[in-house]
Amino acid sequence: MINDLGDTIVAVATPPGEGAIGIVRLSGKQAIEIADQFFYGKNLTRVEGHTIHYGKIKDENDRIIDECLAIVFRSPRSYTNEDIVEFNCHGSSYILEEIVQLFLRHGIRHAKKGEFTLRAFLNGQMDLSQAEAIADLIASNNEATHELAMKQMRGGFSDEIKRLRQELIDFAALIELELDFSEEDVEFADRTKLRALVTELQEAIQKLLNSFRLGNVLKNGVATVIAGRPNAGKSTLLNALLNEERAIVSEIAGTTRDTVEEVMNINGVLFRLIDTAGIRVSEDQIEKMGVSRTMEKIAQSTLVIYVFDVTETTPRDLWEDADRFLDASKAITARSSQIFVANKMDLNPYTHPEDYYRKGSISYDNLVSISAKNKMNIEYLKERLYKAIISSPELLDQTIITNNRHYEALYRADESLGAVVDGLDSGISGDLIALDIRQALHHLGEITGEIYTDDLLDSIFGRFCIGK
Amino acid sequence: MINDLGDTIVAVATPPGEGAIGIVRLSGKQAIEIADQFFYGKNLTRVEGHTIHYGKIKDENDRIIDECLAIVFRSPRSYTNEDIVEFNCHGSSYILEEIVQLFLRHGIRHAKKGEFTLRAFLNGQMDLSQAEAIADLIASNNEATHELAMKQMRGGFSDEIKRLRQELIDFAALIELELDFSEEDVEFADRTKLRALVTELQEAIQKLLNSFRLGNVLKNGVATVIAGRPNAGKSTLLNALLNEERAIVSEIAGTTRDTVEEVMNINGVLFRLIDTAGIRVSEDQIEKMGVSRTMEKIAQSTLVIYVFDVTETTPRDLWEDADRFLDASKAITARSSQIFVANKMDLNPYTHPEDYYRKGSISYDNLVSISAKNKMNIEYLKERLYKAIISSPELLDQTIITNNRHYEALYRADESLGAVVDGLDSGISGDLIALDIRQALHHLGEITGEIYTDDLLDSIFGRFCIGK
Repeated sequence: MINDLGDTIVAVATPPGEGAIGIVRLSGKQAIEIADQFFYGKNLTRVEGHTIHYGKIKDENDRIIDECLAIVFRSPRSYTNEDIVEFNCHGSSYILEEIVQLFLRHGIRHAKKGEFTLRAFLNGQMDLSQAEAIADLIASNNEATHELAMKQMRGGFSDEIKRLRQELIDFAALIELELDFSEEDVEFADRTKLRALVTELQEAIQKLLNSFRLGNVLKNGVATVIAGRPNAGKSTLLNALLNEERAIVSEIAGTTRDTVEEVMNINGVLFRLIDTAGIRVSEDQIEKMGVSRTMEKIAQSTLVIYVFDVTETTPRDLWEDADRFLDASKAITARSSQIFVANKMDLNPYTHPEDYYRKGSISYDNLVSISAKNKMNIEYLKERLYKAIISSPELLDQTIITNNRHYEALYRADESLGAVVDGLDSGISGDLIALDIRQALHHLGEITGEIYTDDLLDSIFGRFCIGK
Repeated sequence: MINDLGDTIVAVATPPGEGAIGIVRLSGKQAIEIADQFFYGKNLTRVEGHTIHYGKIKDENDRIIDECLAIVFRSPRSYTNEDIVEFNCHGSSYILEEIVQLFLRHGIRHAKKGEFTLRAFLNGQMDLSQAEAIADLIASNNEATHELAMKQMRGGFSDEIKRLRQELIDFAALIELELDFSEEDVEFADRTKLRALVTELQEAIQKLLNSFRLGNVLKNGVATVIAGRPNAGKSTLLNALLNEERAIVSEIAGTTRDTVEEVMNINGVLFRLIDTAGIRVSEDQIEKMGVSRTMEKIAQSTLVIYVFDVTETTPRDLWEDADRFLDASKAITARSSQIFVANKMDLNPYTHPEDYYRKGSISYDNLVSISAKNKMNIEYLKERLYKAIISSPELLDQTIITNNRHYEALYRADESLGAVVDGLDSGISGDLIALDIRQALHHLGEITGEIYTDDLLDSIFGRFCIGK
């Protein structure tokens, strides 16, 4: 994939299907020259970069394929850093394909998936994590994923990784210098300082690793289980929550996945609402199965909305349910992931929600009184749900990682740094420490692409669309 | 629709879905000014037309929606004749929709279907039949439809209509001059010349009307029924014909329609192949029904491929079948619409195809010997099928109409011209003749849009996609 940078490549850059405009994009040394051979209206080889020209594309037999606009970008001021020509054509797949075929017959090769962006990366226009962000940006379908991808594309994450890496490189250099003078037993690198640096790095990496859970939730949506006894009002609540959202949600393609039944957007964060069968203590074999299925869903969820009917549920009932159904799911660690919803407040206006509080687990923070039927307090509940995920707005300002590959590289870097610390503690020799530092550098470098393999590039850019 | 030309409009111009590039397009008096308010990187109000600028789009809260390219076109050098700004963005529906929403919040209106092209028409950039051709061009999915749309868009048809209309206008002016001097009983308009002109016009219109059948066939594909006795080899022939075509065909969305089973492309003309049940004379009630269904399909088809097994069919059998099954279908008028296929020649190499000839109906021109199983002579058969539709290459060079609306307008114009001739024959007064000429002018004017109504524009541009 890397060895054919000399080729000129072509691909359709707009989504498939009919539209007003469709774009055919060429990039490479011969892009302008060959585009010009079939473009009539202006000599493209003589025009300046960043200009647009009206003309016709004709094939070898003088057949007009389209009247279109040709946009010329000249190296290095272009997406790929190479010469680029983009033809803005009538948006017919037939026309776009005919134009691509025309160029394929004249020494231009079809671009592989993501190959324009690959070239941008290889030519130093962006680093690897920025390139990955472009694919995320195109796939973004809500405010949160858009924001994360935009930040990453603009380089915030890269800068942080590069800074960490540079500090480590400086130290590694000192240690390796020591190795050159190993017979003289000098120590250029201050072990205490190194230790402090490594600890600092580990903390920074740990913070990034911790952000992955949030990043993942923002990217894939918050798995939110609605649970409760039969007839507590779960479905009414689901409908009340979705009230104005249903239309908006259905417009976004691909948001619904797996067992998700409905998707709700609160301030740009997607909540994937999973309705469940009512649960209660029972000897009935079938009901028991339903309970265990629901508890399984709870165990896999990020957030549980536990709905109860205030006209039928005593505080003791609620606490028992919580012990039985919620705490039993071991995956639930942070209590902030449970929201208790006191439903049917309209039928029992004299209920004191405080009666349901329980020290250390149920409080003002995670109990909300509503009437799903009358849509009372639904907006407030949404606010609570949002806060359960984004506990403070500043959370969104820090660097959040969303990419499995980055997570893994950071995790490996952290491991190597751990080995460095162990090495320092046990006083092993500089060359072994240097080895572990190199390993950490390697993993950090993989994130931004200072270090890469063909396979890695294939797997990253293979996920792009054609033409990008 | 026509009264809001003062508005500035916005729409996504690329097909829906993820892609490398998505375009948001603005057109109207305020396009550049408002686009500039949210574009950071260059002052768009000061740049020249036909230039491209890199920058960011930020919303009112300074949130970056995208990094993109802004292309500026200045009136009158643009598609709509108005100022246009096109943002080439990352191809995420979310991003494109956010940008559209941003502009909708700031005094720009969402464009209706085809409204950019409507403006191009109203502003004199193109006539109505050229505008219609743009929709056809975008919908084109093969060489023939592409060619027809391209020709129409480039104005060949319009020029012909306008020329005819102008000649008639000149005459109408003379006749109306007569009316002004009606008391003096002068004749400015030479009746003999008028008659000659009208006849010439009628001939030209008739030629266009006649081209509609070919146009229709090219646009919608040639309905081609494969018929024959049971076991004559119809399905084997179908497969042989489709052999290399199946993959190509399946890539073109929307080509398959109605009862069509397979689509084959010969030199850019689509043939919609309709397989049928075997037909033979029978007393069996069910078989009779099958025969009548097949004959119905034959009646609706443009082309019939009648396959027979040379090892079992005598010339007399074939002729009887032809009389019974083919001529009985009254819809078949031109004999060129029947191709007789002598199949299984491999099993009976000593057959003389000439034995099956029959004066006036079956000859070298429409009988082809093949072996479907061995794919013998299949290419030759295809050539024959193509020639049955495009009898000479010159046919494709003349103006071909494909649009129902044009057909109807031409038909009505022809009627009015007929009334003019009748009027001249019966010596009726100039004012009545003038009325019929005006009527003919009206219908011709509808084609190119000198004459239009809001309803007509709504119906024409309502078929366009959003953003065109």
